[in-house]
Amino acid sequence: MGKKVYNFGAGPAMLPVSVMERIRDEFLDFQGMGVSVIEISHRSKEFQNILVEAQNLFRELTGVPDNYKILFVHGGARMQFSALPLNLAGRVPSRKCLYFETGNFASLAVKDAKPFGDIRVVASSADTNFDRIPDYDPADIEQDAAYLHITSNNTVFGTQWQQFPESGQVPLIADQTSEILSRVIDYSKFGCIYAGLQKNLGPSGMAMVVIREDLLGHAGEQTPLLLNYAVYDKDNSLTNTTNTFAIYVVKLVLDWLKAQGGVAVIEKLNRQKAARLYEVIDRSDFYKGFVQTRDRSIMNVTFNLQTPELEAKFLQEASAENLYALKGHRAVGGIRASIYNPMPMEGVEALASFMEEFQRKNG
Amino acid sequence: MGKKVYNFGAGPAMLPVSVMERIRDEFLDFQGMGVSVIEISHRSKEFQNILVEAQNLFRELTGVPDNYKILFVHGGARMQFSALPLNLAGRVPSRKCLYFETGNFASLAVKDAKPFGDIRVVASSADTNFDRIPDYDPADIEQDAAYLHITSNNTVFGTQWQQFPESGQVPLIADQTSEILSRVIDYSKFGCIYAGLQKNLGPSGMAMVVIREDLLGHAGEQTPLLLNYAVYDKDNSLTNTTNTFAIYVVKLVLDWLKAQGGVAVIEKLNRQKAARLYEVIDRSDFYKGFVQTRDRSIMNVTFNLQTPELEAKFLQEASAENLYALKGHRAVGGIRASIYNPMPMEGVEALASFMEEFQRKNG
Repeated sequence: MGKKVYNFGAGPAMLPVSVMERIRDEFLDFQGMGVSVIEISHRSKEFQNILVEAQNLFRELTGVPDNYKILFVHGGARMQFSALPLNLAGRVPSRKCLYFETGNFASLAVKDAKPFGDIRVVASSADTNFDRIPDYDPADIEQDAAYLHITSNNTVFGTQWQQFPESGQVPLIADQTSEILSRVIDYSKFGCIYAGLQKNLGPSGMAMVVIREDLLGHAGEQTPLLLNYAVYDKDNSLTNTTNTFAIYVVKLVLDWLKAQGGVAVIEKLNRQKAARLYEVIDRSDFYKGFVQTRDRSIMNVTFNLQTPELEAKFLQEASAENLYALKGHRAVGGIRASIYNPMPMEGVEALASFMEEFQRKNG
Repeated sequence: MGKKVYNFGAGPAMLPVSVMERIRDEFLDFQGMGVSVIEISHRSKEFQNILVEAQNLFRELTGVPDNYKILFVHGGARMQFSALPLNLAGRVPSRKCLYFETGNFASLAVKDAKPFGDIRVVASSADTNFDRIPDYDPADIEQDAAYLHITSNNTVFGTQWQQFPESGQVPLIADQTSEILSRVIDYSKFGCIYAGLQKNLGPSGMAMVVIREDLLGHAGEQTPLLLNYAVYDKDNSLTNTTNTFAIYVVKLVLDWLKAQGGVAVIEKLNRQKAARLYEVIDRSDFYKGFVQTRDRSIMNVTFNLQTPELEAKFLQEASAENLYALKGHRAVGGIRASIYNPMPMEGVEALASFMEEFQRKNG
């Protein structure tokens, strides 16, 4: 196959090589049972151990306080766009819910929530195609709202909240899908964070929800059973047959992250990885970063070249060098390099070197 | 490890050995891409091919007519207990929905549906702990109902509908979770069938829904986006990031079933497997079948021994012989052997021989 493949896909994304090798090696025989981990009951003691270990590791790695519950829920992050107002709008008589609109998924979170509350947008950067995190007036964060929702990292556009909004008494909720565990976060500032698994946590198809316990129990009767977080909490995420494979992989990814030194260590590496790419982009006008400098993401690096033709050539030659899945989202065009936790510095270095070489030949 | 392990678990259940070996062998490098199938985008052409091939294979193997849509949906079968009334109750002004209550999951289907329609039980076998499919008066299938729901095979108790109810103009819906693809079914008699994947189809965490196209589009505004079947249909099950691993495994399982000769061939084998076990049970009073003979399942064989002590001894010695996961559900006790499509005749023969030997020693 020649050169090693580096996968810059936005998600489902690459997982740590050592995790992937371990899954393969024990795929037919889990812990000497003679059956696969995907063939055992979600109620077996072996699987329950996996689940509890994953929850404990997450708590240990993040410092999530004891009064927060860690849930594994069906449907990925998008299902939570409906579940959040169904669970939380009922906290206040007005059912008022506040949102920052900072990208594609932030907009969908607003849209999907509409049937279930009085959904209001505090601030939006739609007017400049989401090239920034918008400024806002703190007075617009109305203190009688059920919650304030942000998308802490915007995968499609490559922006990231550097400093989170002060929401006062209103519980702050973050969709952390494309940045969970990538930087140190004070979870006690949030009422709830959630993330689809398929970027920093594991395979696609489910989500983690970390929620302060006083926010449970506000769902109305019209909430479908498996969208009710209190139900997941009561049954420790095993109300029905869960996605056992996904939770097993999450447990291995958390083991791996711990072995790397934890979140603070990986954050430092993530900042170095992003800085290497932004440095190439900023060196000249050949590459043009898509978003405002102050709001740049350390997870998704987006940029354009001078012409669509040059971008097509870039993608074709990168692919020939085994730099995989660099095409930008259709809403942005250009190039997007997703460099989640599992992407090693060598992968980023391979891309940066390719970018420099491509510029030399075409600049 | 000594003797081969045979896994009689009710689900997540064993998958065909050749499928498991193939997943392992290509786990790090899918189709020469240098990345895993779980690391590629759900929107990549490689994954889209998997999805479409799985749908085409299912149609080919079952003869599902062209006016039925094949959807892969989040949350397993249980999520559909809420989704069904949300999608279908609105077909009729009364929102009346009819159910047969034939076991644990049938009861949960009734319970979860209640917030979303006028949910009525046509007939129940709860009075005899679900040891039979109940008789019913055809006049009780009211023709102004939105649908009639059955659980075609009852995993926990081991009963199965041998002949489906005549529902007239009312669309018949079947939860086929624990029997899909195990016997030839005339899909045109049903408005909708659905199944969690984790028994005859693949790993746990999602479900397949096969639905007649005229039944789409009746969901109200209060339906969460990812519980709306019309949304899945419009986006060919890719509204959001799906469980790519599960769909990949389903595709391999369908390939395997086709190579076995298809549904009619596997049905014949399934009947032989079940007959072998029921014959041992019926030979004496040492083993006592849990359910009425006429309603016996060919997927889940349930039986008791004379005393709980003897049952415990049976389970312990079976386990020592690598006959795994035979313990009955807590609602029934005793022994349950789940013998889904992937269980080979050799596994059933190993269990039957063990049962005969155990009876000789303890009878």
